[in-house]
Amino acid sequence: MEKNLKLTLEYLGTNYYGWQLLPNKPTVQGKVKEALETVLRHEVKLIGASRTDAGVHALGQVANFFTSKEIPLNDLKRALNGLLPPDIKVTKVEEVPEDFHARRSAKGKLYRYRLFLREVPSPFEFQRSWFVPYRLDLKAMEEAARLFLGTKDFTTFSKSDRKREVNPIRTIDKIELVKEGYVLELLFVGRSFLRHMIRVITATLIEVGKGKLRPEEVEKLFEARSREAAPYLAPPYGLYLERVYYEDYPY
Amino acid sequence: MEKNLKLTLEYLGTNYYGWQLLPNKPTVQGKVKEALETVLRHEVKLIGASRTDAGVHALGQVANFFTSKEIPLNDLKRALNGLLPPDIKVTKVEEVPEDFHARRSAKGKLYRYRLFLREVPSPFEFQRSWFVPYRLDLKAMEEAARLFLGTKDFTTFSKSDRKREVNPIRTIDKIELVKEGYVLELLFVGRSFLRHMIRVITATLIEVGKGKLRPEEVEKLFEARSREAAPYLAPPYGLYLERVYYEDYPY
Repeated sequence: MEKNLKLTLEYLGTNYYGWQLLPNKPTVQGKVKEALETVLRHEVKLIGASRTDAGVHALGQVANFFTSKEIPLNDLKRALNGLLPPDIKVTKVEEVPEDFHARRSAKGKLYRYRLFLREVPSPFEFQRSWFVPYRLDLKAMEEAARLFLGTKDFTTFSKSDRKREVNPIRTIDKIELVKEGYVLELLFVGRSFLRHMIRVITATLIEVGKGKLRPEEVEKLFEARSREAAPYLAPPYGLYLERVYYEDYPY
Repeated sequence: MEKNLKLTLEYLGTNYYGWQLLPNKPTVQGKVKEALETVLRHEVKLIGASRTDAGVHALGQVANFFTSKEIPLNDLKRALNGLLPPDIKVTKVEEVPEDFHARRSAKGKLYRYRLFLREVPSPFEFQRSWFVPYRLDLKAMEEAARLFLGTKDFTTFSKSDRKREVNPIRTIDKIELVKEGYVLELLFVGRSFLRHMIRVITATLIEVGKGKLRPEEVEKLFEARSREAAPYLAPPYGLYLERVYYEDYPY
């Protein structure tokens, strides 16, 4: 009997060219697929919930695959973690219904963007947060963040895709700013996000925080419907895929 | 006029052979000395408060040196941080009285030993904490920790030094266990510590936590006055020099 197995994964993205399999480049999907194939001794088609970019981290990436091998799930988890490098770990292995699909079944996702605001960068935050040595107006950022909530056309705030037509209409259900010491985290919850969307929104909010963009001007950026209208991109290493929601999506 | 300057430093010890200068090996002292000499254009004798071992981290190492160069302290800090690698940073530069000596003037130190207790190791904790996938009896550990407080002969709990006679009598003023999620931190405050002392005590407390050593047996270990009597050594990468106290030592 073929079983559908769901993996929950953590990884530090620093040493990988993102999630997605690439020929001759280390990717997270490549490492996990290789470990699975070593244990199960058959080819594995591994489906990930989110194609995280190079350098992006995950605290709760989800993937699924099919196998007919009989192996206790806890043994599979331990074998995988033994084979995987220290910067990729499987925290859960669960059997799920046949129709579960890591990407298509996802109802929503939680991403966290981490910023380090001190004047001097921290050795412990290197490649784990975006170093922004400025005093930021958090109230203005929160005001601007509200303008991104709901269902909108996010063309301005995403990477244009020349190869295929992508629907630019997306829904963000929550953006929250959490400050603790020198660390500021922006939490984003939404059904799905366009490529680079969180990183462009984050850069836009930082510009608002620095006083270089007024919250009202954000509306004009939406209207422009052009990637060139928005500020630069926040770097990948501040971004964490924190959680993928299935039936437990709160919105 | 020669000025005595005090540096406060943070570093991730992973890529260094400890603080202390070594020929042909990367050390933290070596990197900081090199950066100082590049900026000041004269040889610098850099005195560190603590000779942290290879792999040990610091959130508040202190060092001092003398210079007669006229340079605003904030410019010196920025120049040093520009020259130093991302895993070593100077958080403060202050002028101190002529008789200030980073090691000899120190009244006490705070070290933190970080443990990660989950069943699966975390990619984010790799080389930053000791992975201990066991259920630990924290009450027994706290009971045993109290036996290390005060002024004692710590021969059993330190590295024997063949080269020189070291006074094994030391005073620990505080040991505190702080648990948050999967992270357990042991805080040690004392006037000064012997080599490996915190790592041997940590390993001993972990043995107590696992139920392999009873708190009462700790007294016997003290009486043995032999390094062979105590358990193994906790690894260096869980240890952080958090703070060096001068006139502000609370005990």
